[in-house]
Amino acid sequence: MDTTVALAQALIQRPSVTPEDAGCLGIIGERLAALGFTLEYMDAGDTRNLWARRGTGQPLFAFAGHTDVVPTGPEADWTHPPFAGHLADGMLHGRGAADMKGSLAAMVTACETFLAQHPAPSIDLALLLTSDEEGPATHGTRHVMDVLQARGEAIDWCLVGEPSSKSTLGDIARRGRRGSLNCTLRVNGKQGHVAYPHLALNPIHDVVAGLTRLSTTEWDQGNDHFPATTLQISNIHSGTGVTNVIPGSCEVKFNFRFNTEQTPEGLKAKAEACFDGAVADLAFDWNLSGHAFLTDGGPLAGALQQACQDVLGVTPDINTGGGTSDGRFIAPTGTDVVELGPINATIHQVDECVCADDLARLSTTYARILELMCV
Amino acid sequence: MDTTVALAQALIQRPSVTPEDAGCLGIIGERLAALGFTLEYMDAGDTRNLWARRGTGQPLFAFAGHTDVVPTGPEADWTHPPFAGHLADGMLHGRGAADMKGSLAAMVTACETFLAQHPAPSIDLALLLTSDEEGPATHGTRHVMDVLQARGEAIDWCLVGEPSSKSTLGDIARRGRRGSLNCTLRVNGKQGHVAYPHLALNPIHDVVAGLTRLSTTEWDQGNDHFPATTLQISNIHSGTGVTNVIPGSCEVKFNFRFNTEQTPEGLKAKAEACFDGAVADLAFDWNLSGHAFLTDGGPLAGALQQACQDVLGVTPDINTGGGTSDGRFIAPTGTDVVELGPINATIHQVDECVCADDLARLSTTYARILELMCV
Ligand SMILES: [Zn+2]
Ligand SMILES: [Zn+2]
Repeated sequence: MDTTVALAQALIQRPSVTPEDAGCLGIIGERLAALGFTLEYMDAGDTRNLWARRGTGQPLFAFAGHTDVVPTGPEADWTHPPFAGHLADGMLHGRGAADMKGSLAAMVTACETFLAQHPAPSIDLALLLTSDEEGPATHGTRHVMDVLQARGEAIDWCLVGEPSSKSTLGDIARRGRRGSLNCTLRVNGKQGHVAYPHLALNPIHDVVAGLTRLSTTEWDQGNDHFPATTLQISNIHSGTGVTNVIPGSCEVKFNFRFNTEQTPEGLKAKAEACFDGAVADLAFDWNLSGHAFLTDGGPLAGALQQACQDVLGVTPDINTGGGTSDGRFIAPTGTDVVELGPINATIHQVDECVCADDLARLSTTYARILELMCV
Repeated sequence: MDTTVALAQALIQRPSVTPEDAGCLGIIGERLAALGFTLEYMDAGDTRNLWARRGTGQPLFAFAGHTDVVPTGPEADWTHPPFAGHLADGMLHGRGAADMKGSLAAMVTACETFLAQHPAPSIDLALLLTSDEEGPATHGTRHVMDVLQARGEAIDWCLVGEPSSKSTLGDIARRGRRGSLNCTLRVNGKQGHVAYPHLALNPIHDVVAGLTRLSTTEWDQGNDHFPATTLQISNIHSGTGVTNVIPGSCEVKFNFRFNTEQTPEGLKAKAEACFDGAVADLAFDWNLSGHAFLTDGGPLAGALQQACQDVLGVTPDINTGGGTSDGRFIAPTGTDVVELGPINATIHQVDECVCADDLARLSTTYARILELMCV
């Protein structure tokens, strides 16, 4: 069995449902220590983190990723047991196969390959790994970056292993992500009986016009680097189920995915203005879960493109689509951040799997990126 | 102690939380049997009903009411125990004192008084009593009316004892009620991730414009007999609490209180048209909980007014306001229906109570109505 596939299989066999690490970082740390990496386990709260670094100079290239996986749902729904790591018909099966234990294995074997050929490279290497990317992500990459910042340790280039590919390995990579801004809106009206509406203040009636404006506003049309800013209402709850009572309150949650045309403060003001005219008591509780970030034409994006062409024979579309990633915590320190990983068709689903051959090729691509960054 | 107050107290001491009767109908039935009434217990499902009739001719005058009460909430919150029937400072205390065990007692003692003075009256008398008015009301008055209809037994005049008075006994009575029409709207969109809205169909976004139209439409301006038709959205639920998932479905409940300017079919069509332009799958589940009804200038309303003037010295405002009552099941058979009962300030609340003297005067008023209907 290919060495990358074998390592990915060993990691899948650890049931590291977020925020559990289940021993994954120990397996990886052992391999990295043998390559001369210094290991620092920066645990925080319920989260296990590893900062592994080789060298004490600059520039510093870091891989970033996570060992935690999303829950499996009913295991009976799976064709192969989700934590068995079965290899069948060329596919490696299991929760985390694509998101992102396959990438973690490729990072480790890429370092092994690269260092075997370049025992004294001109760049330092690091891996920034956490067991809380799929959960609240408060004690993971964010925490490690805080520690590094506090001691003045800077990452120059970072490659996040999130599964970016769509139809074929390397067809899509990321060089930025939209930001994410959450709001919980609580509307306090006045409860009453449906037969006496003049004695009540219906919070649903009071808020639906604002929600209509919120859901139909065009925030921007995107720009050269980013798709348009979008808003989605994800939750609305009001009423106890009884049909003859006007409810006293209503709670709504909505989320912006925003590009560099917007600022969080600007979006907050525009969203709240949608509710002008409401007479109930409205309370907006905002939570910025990540700024937008963009890596613009640096050498890292060029190396990524070249490596994909050299190893995979494809020219990646390096865009800013998709959801957020832990890159949002790394990019604000001035780091160039790109993301490249396997095909994401099955992530977070039953029967998650990844092409075994793609993992070997991903390892070779990662190693080629390291070589190109040394030039 | 006054005989009406004593009977009301005995009824309050039976904890008949809906749909329990807890023996109330037995107490009442015994008193009515002694007056020559024939008793028929028309139980259905979990509900106990009594149809008590005196005479086999026409015209037939019926009192209507219910023995069940709404729950007490925490009994520790009550100044007097809710099922004790304490008499303090001239007030009779307890759950059901005003809604409507006081009225039931007044109906019984009014029959006693009336029949003592008129042993062979020119009208038949009946009482239609149920233990499910405060609950779903499917096995109560509706069921008894179905049985009476099936055997061709018609009620000419009906006085419902719901607590209609506001500031002083007899200041307000009812001669009709708006209808009530419920709808549960289920919207089926397509679940997805908030970062990929083009792959999903957000049911909240799809429905808020329609809800805005629904909540701002003027359905009519009422007429000489009725206030305007009103609509209230009582419930809306969508989303699992997670902020990054576009929900797959949304459920909304709303209720019309409608007057005689509207028909249920017309309202359904107008409401559904509010959602023209929605692209998700919308399913409207309609439930007519009561037609609007109106007793228009019949002799019964005149007798009610005259009796209030004679006994109470007040001229009642006989209107069509308020919620629904079991009159909705009786009026459609062609019966004239009016409603008169004690002050409703404390109904469905902690420390429900009724003025003891009002119960005695209500009994006298009911007896006077019977006299006036004999002329
Ligand atoms: Zn991931
Ligand atoms: Zn009642």
